[in-house]
Amino acid sequence: MAIHFATGNENKIREVSNILGIPLEIARLELDEIQDVDIEKVARRKAEHAFQLLGKPVFIDDVGVYFSAWNGFPGTFSKFLQDAGGNGIILRMLSGERDRKVMARCVIAFHDGEKVHTFIGEMNGVVIEKPKGETGWGYDPIIIPTGESRTYAEMGEEEKNKISHRALALKKFKEFLNSKEPPKKI
Amino acid sequence: MAIHFATGNENKIREVSNILGIPLEIARLELDEIQDVDIEKVARRKAEHAFQLLGKPVFIDDVGVYFSAWNGFPGTFSKFLQDAGGNGIILRMLSGERDRKVMARCVIAFHDGEKVHTFIGEMNGVVIEKPKGETGWGYDPIIIPTGESRTYAEMGEEEKNKISHRALALKKFKEFLNSKEPPKKI
Repeated sequence: MAIHFATGNENKIREVSNILGIPLEIARLELDEIQDVDIEKVARRKAEHAFQLLGKPVFIDDVGVYFSAWNGFPGTFSKFLQDAGGNGIILRMLSGERDRKVMARCVIAFHDGEKVHTFIGEMNGVVIEKPKGETGWGYDPIIIPTGESRTYAEMGEEEKNKISHRALALKKFKEFLNSKEPPKKI
Repeated sequence: MAIHFATGNENKIREVSNILGIPLEIARLELDEIQDVDIEKVARRKAEHAFQLLGKPVFIDDVGVYFSAWNGFPGTFSKFLQDAGGNGIILRMLSGERDRKVMARCVIAFHDGEKVHTFIGEMNGVVIEKPKGETGWGYDPIIIPTGESRTYAEMGEEEKNKISHRALALKKFKEFLNSKEPPKKI
């Protein structure tokens, strides 16, 4: 049975399908998100709401981006900062800041029909001063992950999808799903 | 009968009591706030939740602060930006920005037992480069309202409470309450 992924974000659909490599049904739901600084709590509540509306096992994906110079802001509200002005505004806001550290946290919250399971992946990196690279979306062109010399947008999708915060969370989710598969008949 | 005000913010309690000039009962509730860019919608849902928990007429107060240079961000999330780093970080984020315009919007959402009524007050102003003034809280020391030469924090509480976005919203709320008073017996 295909698992439902509740999202309206086409970029996420593509990324999650590529990384997870299992059939997905997309559920386009109007989901409430609570305002809270704890992204796992936000994700958990969103998965509960998705299951309430759909009545079938369903997962959601939520990401927070935490800038060190701003004590972690915008965190759970990062997509609204992207919507408000994108990377141009973020780079203006950070101009003159010496502390360029950033952390991105992805939470996959899966309601299996009984309860919510969460899977978390994190990426540390630095924010560069000018966008670099042509692929990707969101913060991809302005963040270089620790240990790398290129932005996600320079790497291209395939490479990003091996190391990203979302990839790490989805890897844990996939292991969980595999461990729950019914034992094969002998 | 005293009206219930659902808040945990001591500064708001003092301001709202002073401005409204009617007896208030404070209801300390754990209220959900949804993530949405529409502050009136956020406030409305919060008032519904407060009434659900309390079972009595109750109002809440919500404020969004919209920076023009950032296309309105953080708006409904402004209190999280304050919590993250306060005015020091906001001024760093705005350093070098020519566009210093800002708008603050206060929404009073009152659940009268049947439905939610909202009352909105707005203040336009500019963000200065260094905090000024000793009174007030939140954004008070860094914003000069249009038509004024001093920040809210320089004015002092009494003067602020005559012209602020919260005062404008509460004035409308007070007029509404007065219009609903039972006719006096002859």
